[in-house]
Amino acid sequence: MGKNLTKRSDDYSKWYNELVVKADLAENSGVRGCMVIKPYGFAIWEKMQAGLDKMFKETGHENAYFPLFIPKSFLSKEASHVEGFAKECAVVTHYRLKNDEDGNGIIVDPEAKLEEELIVRPTSETIIWDTYRRWIQSYRDLPLLINQWANVVRWEMRTRLFLRTAEFLWQEGHTAHATEKEAIEEAELIMNLYAEFAEEHMAVPVIKGVKTESERFAGAVETYCIEALMQDGKALQAGTSHFLGQNFAKAFDVKFANKEGQQEHVWATSWGVSTRLMGALVMTHSDDSGLVIPPKLAPIQVVIVPIYKGLEQLDAISERVKPLVQELRSKGISVKYDDRDTHKPGFKFNEYELKGVPVRLAIGQRDMDNGTFEVARRDTFEKETVPMEEVVSKIEFLMEDIQRNIFDRAHKYREDHITEVDNYDEFKRLIESKGGFISAHWDGTNETENRIKEETKATIRCIPINVAKEPGSCMVTGKPSPFRVLFAKAY
Amino acid sequence: MGKNLTKRSDDYSKWYNELVVKADLAENSGVRGCMVIKPYGFAIWEKMQAGLDKMFKETGHENAYFPLFIPKSFLSKEASHVEGFAKECAVVTHYRLKNDEDGNGIIVDPEAKLEEELIVRPTSETIIWDTYRRWIQSYRDLPLLINQWANVVRWEMRTRLFLRTAEFLWQEGHTAHATEKEAIEEAELIMNLYAEFAEEHMAVPVIKGVKTESERFAGAVETYCIEALMQDGKALQAGTSHFLGQNFAKAFDVKFANKEGQQEHVWATSWGVSTRLMGALVMTHSDDSGLVIPPKLAPIQVVIVPIYKGLEQLDAISERVKPLVQELRSKGISVKYDDRDTHKPGFKFNEYELKGVPVRLAIGQRDMDNGTFEVARRDTFEKETVPMEEVVSKIEFLMEDIQRNIFDRAHKYREDHITEVDNYDEFKRLIESKGGFISAHWDGTNETENRIKEETKATIRCIPINVAKEPGSCMVTGKPSPFRVLFAKAY
Repeated sequence: MGKNLTKRSDDYSKWYNELVVKADLAENSGVRGCMVIKPYGFAIWEKMQAGLDKMFKETGHENAYFPLFIPKSFLSKEASHVEGFAKECAVVTHYRLKNDEDGNGIIVDPEAKLEEELIVRPTSETIIWDTYRRWIQSYRDLPLLINQWANVVRWEMRTRLFLRTAEFLWQEGHTAHATEKEAIEEAELIMNLYAEFAEEHMAVPVIKGVKTESERFAGAVETYCIEALMQDGKALQAGTSHFLGQNFAKAFDVKFANKEGQQEHVWATSWGVSTRLMGALVMTHSDDSGLVIPPKLAPIQVVIVPIYKGLEQLDAISERVKPLVQELRSKGISVKYDDRDTHKPGFKFNEYELKGVPVRLAIGQRDMDNGTFEVARRDTFEKETVPMEEVVSKIEFLMEDIQRNIFDRAHKYREDHITEVDNYDEFKRLIESKGGFISAHWDGTNETENRIKEETKATIRCIPINVAKEPGSCMVTGKPSPFRVLFAKAY
Repeated sequence: MGKNLTKRSDDYSKWYNELVVKADLAENSGVRGCMVIKPYGFAIWEKMQAGLDKMFKETGHENAYFPLFIPKSFLSKEASHVEGFAKECAVVTHYRLKNDEDGNGIIVDPEAKLEEELIVRPTSETIIWDTYRRWIQSYRDLPLLINQWANVVRWEMRTRLFLRTAEFLWQEGHTAHATEKEAIEEAELIMNLYAEFAEEHMAVPVIKGVKTESERFAGAVETYCIEALMQDGKALQAGTSHFLGQNFAKAFDVKFANKEGQQEHVWATSWGVSTRLMGALVMTHSDDSGLVIPPKLAPIQVVIVPIYKGLEQLDAISERVKPLVQELRSKGISVKYDDRDTHKPGFKFNEYELKGVPVRLAIGQRDMDNGTFEVARRDTFEKETVPMEEVVSKIEFLMEDIQRNIFDRAHKYREDHITEVDNYDEFKRLIESKGGFISAHWDGTNETENRIKEETKATIRCIPINVAKEPGSCMVTGKPSPFRVLFAKAY
């Protein structure tokens, strides 16, 4: 028993780090900054992938695969892009090891030096646009709507499991369009798709918006984003969708013949979500007892634990459980029947709480006599004795209800943590105490944004989509401001 | 029209290279030896992945994800393993770029040198066994049955799309067991699983066997394999499953407490198939008109082409096609209705032949009048006029029949190309002329195997599973041999 899990109120950060490891989601590897995603964590990620992949395909996107390596000269072609990524690039310089003649063991063979260094992709715009030049000739080739599921590397100095790792898994969409309007519509469509996925599958409420210039993706004209709020009042950017204008088309000379036969540069978007979503999932719903996983993403949706003395009693219980397991599976509900005789029920209860299994059934002698199951839900810890013949419909109800309840709970927390502030001192006080999103006026300059960041560590998370026009004055400089923007400290 | 595809009989190798590109499977990228897998090719790979992944899960395996990078010291821990991979390792030595002060543009920052070089994984035994040391303590933790889908890099000097590329996609299974027997059974189970996948899904007949010592995986005690035969008489190793003994457990000090509480080293397997399977698929079935894809892996199983003059006629045809498309989709058959008015029917026919779509329907005015469709199958080019009400069942029949027919055809070719030979001169003649597998006696030594390889380029593909005992004498040295082994030139 005993999960030995730090309480959120004691140390939220420690709670997170412990939970990710104890619940078998991921762990640090022997390679600096790189994580191992364990089978239980990977099963959740696979469900995320499946959900997103279906949505991408339903909106006309196809998957493809582009090289892991990017020649240094490619990365350098778009000026602001290379500037954004140069400081965190893993660089391949050699292609062979050898046995050292001086007895130093296995060394890098100095004679096997690459003519041009290769960067392990931090993102794939450059290698993809180098390819698109060959694929796009005419307006008939457009739009080109492509996604890839891949690993990428950004050499981060301070890493945390899922939230910031040197290597992470993600999907990156890269689309090409004939017109500016169409590309902007695509970037917005994806922002909306991401928001729908976060809210409907992950039960994570998000705010949709655009980034300020200083927070934009390196090479983008506009960055759309979805922002979530964690239980410690810090924001987390959960996905971004970039309108890239003609920047990459110009850097890689990608033109198409329009219907009139004239050559034009192509318009582009790129967009991605990553294993970072796993961090958002954990920090949005989980509690001091462990993970809380929304039913739509839970690798095990229902666990059944027998409470018995002796193998004869276990056999009788197993007889009764078997048809229930089959019926639930036939309805597409994933069930685990944990009849291990090496662990006590209390140990198992703790384990499945820790792992966030949405519904736990228990069945002992009294239930056998009464024809019932004890049904416990993970999100509220409520327990109920349910007649056998109602168990399936009860579980079907709970799959919906838990999904809705944890969304509502997170949504309420988020709404309770959006505060309008008109005074910089009040802003500083709130950022340090309650946290959350602070909706405030800002004069629109980099200078003021940077000053606020330096003084409070808060950044502008986004300018919300369809923000209400509300003339006011910047809380710092007093200069005019046309609407409020959302500030927060962020992961 | 006009595919301009080289004929197989003129230049098989050229035919393959052209076909892979023209049919939109893959192409070379701007990075030496690395390919771009195009959407059509990737859709086939996704179907392969889905089929294999389901089989892995049904046999109790779980997916996880391990780091891309392997510290040089990890790779060096298993002596024969590092020797096998040292000559083809991409090595990361630095983690930052910078703007050169002397005006050379973006350069690798010499100050950002890694303390220990990282190898881009050529295979993951070492990083995974370093992890398993933390995961395995007791017999209760075994067996550990894990798979990962990943990209790997082996710096090949001569590359060919799918068959041999510097980066490729694959799955690699890594399992840990309490006993030698159990590990060997796992390695054999996977060999059989691979064979089933190759034959049932890819319609590629394979021979199961074990490798000789010189062809074994670096670090393995036994390598099981499946070997396929291409249309040019060359063999292709389509998948391998390795019994690793305790080699990696010892190198990484992975022990478990057995039921008696004693510490023992763990027994291991590893196994993988890669995007190389795409090459096997193409070379087994395709012809001078293009790809032939088995229905189970075809991204588009049925294409419907309207033959019309004017939009009014097209509308009438589309009306008739629509319910058919819906009915086929409801049966899980993927259908494309190609009503593009930018291309003529003949062009479309050619295109779908090139892309290997198993069944093509055409419908023109005569079919409209008669209530029929023209149904053409890709594998035999047979055409038939089928009454509307029989089209769906005809297609269902063809999905099965084409799958079976192309397997049978490949199987017949393979059987016709296994020749028993007892004389080395005859062996040399046959290897150069007919090719295929040659079943011959061999004295069991590396020396003879190497001599044959040097003199004929043929290698021992495998010692078939359950090979018949047949005492004989080595065709080269005359020394005794207990059974025949299979030789071939190979990809």
